[in-house]
Amino acid sequence: SGDADWLEIRPCWIQHGQRSGQFPNRALDITLLALSTGGYEEHSPGRGMNGAGGPTAMMDPLEDPVPGVGTYEDFNTIDWVREKSKDRDRHREITSKSKESMGALLHRISDAFSGWLLMLLVGLMSGALAGGIDISAHWLTDMKEGVCLNGFWFNHEHCCWTSNEPTFKERDKCPDWKSWAELIVGTGEGGFAYVVNYMMFMFWALLFSFLAVTLVKSFAPYACGSGIPEIKTILSGFIIRGYLGKWTLIVKTITLVLAVSSGLSLGKEGPLVHVACCCANILCHLFTKYRKNEAKRREVLSAAAAVGVSVAFGAPIGGVLFSLEEVSYYFPLKTLWRSFFAALVAAFTLRSINPFGNSRLVLFYVEFHAPWHLLELGPFILLGIFGGLWGALFIRANIAWCRRRKTTLLGHYPIVEVLVVAGVTALVSFPNSYTRMSGAELIKELFNDCSLLDSSQLCRYKQVPPRPHRPADSGLYTALWQLSLALLFKMGITVVTFGMKVPSGLFIPSMAVGAIAGRLLGVGMEQLAYYNHDWAIFRGWCTPGADCITPGLYAMVGAAACLGGVTRMTVSLVVIMFELTGGLEYIVPLMAATMTSKWVADAFGREGIYEAHIRLNGYPFLEPKEEFEHKSLAVDVMRPRRADPALAVLTQEGMTVEEAEALVASTRYSGFPVVVSQESQRLVGFVLRRDLLISIDNARQRQEGVVSSSQVLFTEHPPAQAADAPPPVRLRSLLDLSPFTVADHTPMDITVDIFRKLGLRQCLVTHNGWARTHTHVHTCADTGTCMETQIPEMQHSHMLRWGSYSKKSN
Amino acid sequence: SGDADWLEIRPCWIQHGQRSGQFPNRALDITLLALSTGGYEEHSPGRGMNGAGGPTAMMDPLEDPVPGVGTYEDFNTIDWVREKSKDRDRHREITSKSKESMGALLHRISDAFSGWLLMLLVGLMSGALAGGIDISAHWLTDMKEGVCLNGFWFNHEHCCWTSNEPTFKERDKCPDWKSWAELIVGTGEGGFAYVVNYMMFMFWALLFSFLAVTLVKSFAPYACGSGIPEIKTILSGFIIRGYLGKWTLIVKTITLVLAVSSGLSLGKEGPLVHVACCCANILCHLFTKYRKNEAKRREVLSAAAAVGVSVAFGAPIGGVLFSLEEVSYYFPLKTLWRSFFAALVAAFTLRSINPFGNSRLVLFYVEFHAPWHLLELGPFILLGIFGGLWGALFIRANIAWCRRRKTTLLGHYPIVEVLVVAGVTALVSFPNSYTRMSGAELIKELFNDCSLLDSSQLCRYKQVPPRPHRPADSGLYTALWQLSLALLFKMGITVVTFGMKVPSGLFIPSMAVGAIAGRLLGVGMEQLAYYNHDWAIFRGWCTPGADCITPGLYAMVGAAACLGGVTRMTVSLVVIMFELTGGLEYIVPLMAATMTSKWVADAFGREGIYEAHIRLNGYPFLEPKEEFEHKSLAVDVMRPRRADPALAVLTQEGMTVEEAEALVASTRYSGFPVVVSQESQRLVGFVLRRDLLISIDNARQRQEGVVSSSQVLFTEHPPAQAADAPPPVRLRSLLDLSPFTVADHTPMDITVDIFRKLGLRQCLVTHNGWARTHTHVHTCADTGTCMETQIPEMQHSHMLRWGSYSKKSN
Repeated sequence: SGDADWLEIRPCWIQHGQRSGQFPNRALDITLLALSTGGYEEHSPGRGMNGAGGPTAMMDPLEDPVPGVGTYEDFNTIDWVREKSKDRDRHREITSKSKESMGALLHRISDAFSGWLLMLLVGLMSGALAGGIDISAHWLTDMKEGVCLNGFWFNHEHCCWTSNEPTFKERDKCPDWKSWAELIVGTGEGGFAYVVNYMMFMFWALLFSFLAVTLVKSFAPYACGSGIPEIKTILSGFIIRGYLGKWTLIVKTITLVLAVSSGLSLGKEGPLVHVACCCANILCHLFTKYRKNEAKRREVLSAAAAVGVSVAFGAPIGGVLFSLEEVSYYFPLKTLWRSFFAALVAAFTLRSINPFGNSRLVLFYVEFHAPWHLLELGPFILLGIFGGLWGALFIRANIAWCRRRKTTLLGHYPIVEVLVVAGVTALVSFPNSYTRMSGAELIKELFNDCSLLDSSQLCRYKQVPPRPHRPADSGLYTALWQLSLALLFKMGITVVTFGMKVPSGLFIPSMAVGAIAGRLLGVGMEQLAYYNHDWAIFRGWCTPGADCITPGLYAMVGAAACLGGVTRMTVSLVVIMFELTGGLEYIVPLMAATMTSKWVADAFGREGIYEAHIRLNGYPFLEPKEEFEHKSLAVDVMRPRRADPALAVLTQEGMTVEEAEALVASTRYSGFPVVVSQESQRLVGFVLRRDLLISIDNARQRQEGVVSSSQVLFTEHPPAQAADAPPPVRLRSLLDLSPFTVADHTPMDITVDIFRKLGLRQCLVTHNGWARTHTHVHTCADTGTCMETQIPEMQHSHMLRWGSYSKKSN
Repeated sequence: SGDADWLEIRPCWIQHGQRSGQFPNRALDITLLALSTGGYEEHSPGRGMNGAGGPTAMMDPLEDPVPGVGTYEDFNTIDWVREKSKDRDRHREITSKSKESMGALLHRISDAFSGWLLMLLVGLMSGALAGGIDISAHWLTDMKEGVCLNGFWFNHEHCCWTSNEPTFKERDKCPDWKSWAELIVGTGEGGFAYVVNYMMFMFWALLFSFLAVTLVKSFAPYACGSGIPEIKTILSGFIIRGYLGKWTLIVKTITLVLAVSSGLSLGKEGPLVHVACCCANILCHLFTKYRKNEAKRREVLSAAAAVGVSVAFGAPIGGVLFSLEEVSYYFPLKTLWRSFFAALVAAFTLRSINPFGNSRLVLFYVEFHAPWHLLELGPFILLGIFGGLWGALFIRANIAWCRRRKTTLLGHYPIVEVLVVAGVTALVSFPNSYTRMSGAELIKELFNDCSLLDSSQLCRYKQVPPRPHRPADSGLYTALWQLSLALLFKMGITVVTFGMKVPSGLFIPSMAVGAIAGRLLGVGMEQLAYYNHDWAIFRGWCTPGADCITPGLYAMVGAAACLGGVTRMTVSLVVIMFELTGGLEYIVPLMAATMTSKWVADAFGREGIYEAHIRLNGYPFLEPKEEFEHKSLAVDVMRPRRADPALAVLTQEGMTVEEAEALVASTRYSGFPVVVSQESQRLVGFVLRRDLLISIDNARQRQEGVVSSSQVLFTEHPPAQAADAPPPVRLRSLLDLSPFTVADHTPMDITVDIFRKLGLRQCLVTHNGWARTHTHVHTCADTGTCMETQIPEMQHSHMLRWGSYSKKSN
């Protein structure tokens, strides 16, 4: 084995915790070889979190914590182990104190229930905001077509509530609601009125989208996009300050309404997850337990992601599973139960606001009357294949477009881009009633099972008296043509819309594409069965006189398939769809389509749209679902390699402040192993760059007599010094005495597993009891797409490097 | 620091992978101090799993694997890391080969889909078995009361299907169905007929329970109990051979039918989970991927647990969440999706068998018509408190009773015990119609919302013409008295029933207790509202003329509360209940009651019934939900302590076969650290006792010239030996070169976290680069309760010791 020449071994004297050279009979020699530890670390103590307690577990009880020590810099990764340990210490302290006094006992009880209270508040606030967004978006969407004379703040439906017409179609034409043509030219009929309506429609669409993009650009650049890729990254332990702040919340809420109302091909579901997470993050500041602990706060954010989906679809169980499956990184069972609580509270808050005006909890309430037949699984699987192909194609096209936006001039004119896309969308979508209506309304119409009284164009069947099958009327054929055009248009425009500098969700556009395709197939099957009910495949179950095929169900299956292809959701998608219908009956078609869609899409690339955007933006994210495929050992991956300069280490004593500062300044590593001495690099612990810099700075400013030639000490007991020597800077409290280590023969797949499961920030590599260091830090390599603020350039993390490394070695 | 005197340090020469003494300038000195590594290990290679490939990752490619190496002994814990690593190796090999030929590509594809195929088979088999169990149990239960003249194999309902009576009550008395009195004495009326029916009822009950307990005792002692505690333990990584075998499956299926039919206060839901797991385990043998890998097999078993609950209640989503929340230890997202698939397949298989005769998927189909009012949360929370109190009380009483069974003579007469309990149950339950019916029927009746035509005694309201509220009739009052008595009886008898030597589930009895209490409270509230609808609390929402209170909903909430109190399920319980009603409406009451119940019950003790039984039986189980509360470091917990004898280690060379065997024989540790030499105990790796013994045995038998004085070598390259020395035994392939290590300053809570999250079997403790060993093995300390076969006495594991240790230090 050629390992020996990696090591430099020299004799030396050591003894733990005491001055070296004391026990001449105890010789030990270990050399540490460093990896190029990734992670950009800037020295700016003022920007840290205010006053977190530092690594209390390791703290010297005699020293006061230095403010800023133990906190994290922006665009850095948290140390899950340290955070969880901190919280356990806090909990232990409260528990042990609670036996002493009544007040402490009350504190313990209130501490235990603060999590539930926080969940309640998150649910209430998110539910209320979602209700407000729904109501405003309805109002502004209708504003594009006309205005209510009773009060301009009524939407179309609300305006006409008082009119007593029996069907919705007639009630639609109530006298209080005036289209813009009626108001401006006095008549709603005729070509000129049509043009006036068309112009006003375009005017409002452009105005709303202009307002949206300007607000985002001026006040909160983080408010754009769906936010889910960033939230996934944050939940995995990254810190992006301000991403979940109050400005983002306010601006995202307002611009989401504007963007949805402008008629762009985007949905509000993804952004609602971001909004809910902002609420949760802001509310966390009310509780010390969550304010001061990044890991605990991420538990709350996981629950908030569930809340977001819960209010988006009215599907609390689906929301919780979405959070579990799609966005969360660390999701203990306690969080599952709390998420469920918060999701329920939010759903019921939303229902009590009643934005859909039907006291239904769910966004698309569907009730089908006919069961499905086993043979229909064929078309359902076809829809699954379509969904998978569309998902794979969409991801490629969208990522290619977003990359072009990042690399070409296009990215410099976000306002122009949004205005052009909004203009084209409005121009194309006005003539076609299926594109003119909002995505959610379109889906609702497509999911609908035609009842006898239904006035929708999609239900224009020839009413043959004894009601055998339903032959299509010409109205239906028109609708089908319009739907086909709408399908093509939606498929194209969504690719360029998702990723623009406005809040934009992907659920509704994806579902719309699938629902159109599904409805088309469904009506096709229905007519096929009507005209050919003597065919062998229809005989037996599709007798004339029975509704044997439900086109609405096909639409639903198609929607699930397309959404599945784009996001690669599985269980949560099926459960959300199940919650819409409330019947277990239809789970099997949904599952068949979702499964097919996922398999087909995975064949073209295993990444969902969110993972693709995470990679595009270069966020440091360790995908929990993917296996590390390559066979290599830690020793193959760790740095420094043979040719690299030796490991940068601190010694536990004997280094001066000046030397320590020089070492830190000459490297960019986020942390340094502390060893016994330069000669005997036996590992004592690990110290973070940030903590070290803050503490030295603090000592220079506050501690009397500290100069550049003062010693930096990591030992427990100070060694004897010359009487005239300047006072030493004692930093043992900074030291992590239990850094994670793996043997150099550990396979990388196990190492990756350890990183994932424990949420490590770094890991040291040892060799047969000799130590080498291998520090891994989740940091990222790229400037964010969606972020207007400058992300400082960061080093590639090793985890990212492994990808390229492994490809070469393969 | 007093650490120094724990260590023995002597100078020595070392170099990795080469003969010692070659590099005199490189000195290193590390002493390992062993823990008393727990874990009973018996040398019996024949009993191991047949031919698993051993630790392939570490395998010397030149050597053939020795059969039995890398497998596990019965009553031992698996090494999750090694198993997962093995599977990844296998997967990598298939992937890399698949590029070579078409056949290998097909193999890869079939390998990828084998998991889905297995899930399909598990779903079909479990669904079919559950259907068979349901049908047989219905038939045998009715057999206690009478027989069908059309064919004795028809149950009561089936027998009377042809009769055209309008209501169920009258259809009940169809001429083809004869009660035993009618058959024997010719009349069904009168006191004598009653006595005859009573005697026959008792006869059948005793016969069924006798058959059940005898079958269990004679053929499959593992078939008793609910099986969930053992399955939790198995899923956490323990091995109990035969627990999921085909004999257990056959006997459990038959005896479950008998036990349920005998009228004992037990349910079939828990045992169905065991049955589904047996199916999964047996079907695993069809696929190499699952047969040979204990970790992969546990993924399938997790899915099977979901399948069990899915078929028990017809609630696939609830089943998956039950598996996730309650029983599983390692539940990756891939398993979530597959579990869901299997659960759905099983539920639809069951439905196509249609055992409930109503083509409903769910066990208790409920449809409520009136919404609930916010003020009703008061009584719902009361039910939650009742459920929590009952849960806590039940657990204590049941555990006390089971402990008495284990420690006194009672445990020696399982057949007598079952017969006595069955006799008492039958004797007491016959006169009361609510105890005479089966638990599931009782719950169905209690959940029922009274419609106008309902003939049930619980719906005997005075029919006041304009139908204001419903004043109770005397029939209802009788029912309430009977229910109160049934409640007391069920509460008592369930305590002694659960844990007897017959298959016995706890879901139905717990739910029955809660449902009775809920229905009583519900009727009480209803009557209160009827007679006092002018009270302030009822005014406004409970006007005369409206059904404002639904007693069935109270029953349902009560059932959820009691089940929650006993099992401490949360999300899965609410979701199962939600799937029964299909309406999100009623989630809030259910959630309020479940939450209250859990909090109340947790105040008396945090263990659910399954955890309590795990602890009672001394299974080695590391509870994933509980936090390790005590503040201590690895150094405080590791063994050997200061006064203990030194660590038992193997050296990588220089030891003879005889010496190695003597070392193994003189200790009971399940594994040994391998060090460079006795003087320089630098850690090279870790070898398991079982692997070592099997390999030495194998070498003695097969390798020519191996004698007691042969050297045992763990080095890569054999050292020069005298020409006449016997050939060495080379065992490097056994060596785990990447044993897990933690620093001795690592807090124990982090160490426990590592154990949990990575599924470790042991972990070594190092100190500042010097190594100490601390081996932890999940093994158990006690003989099993429910197991008739003798579990060999095992050493306490350290994890179990930590409990007592921490209590002392606190």
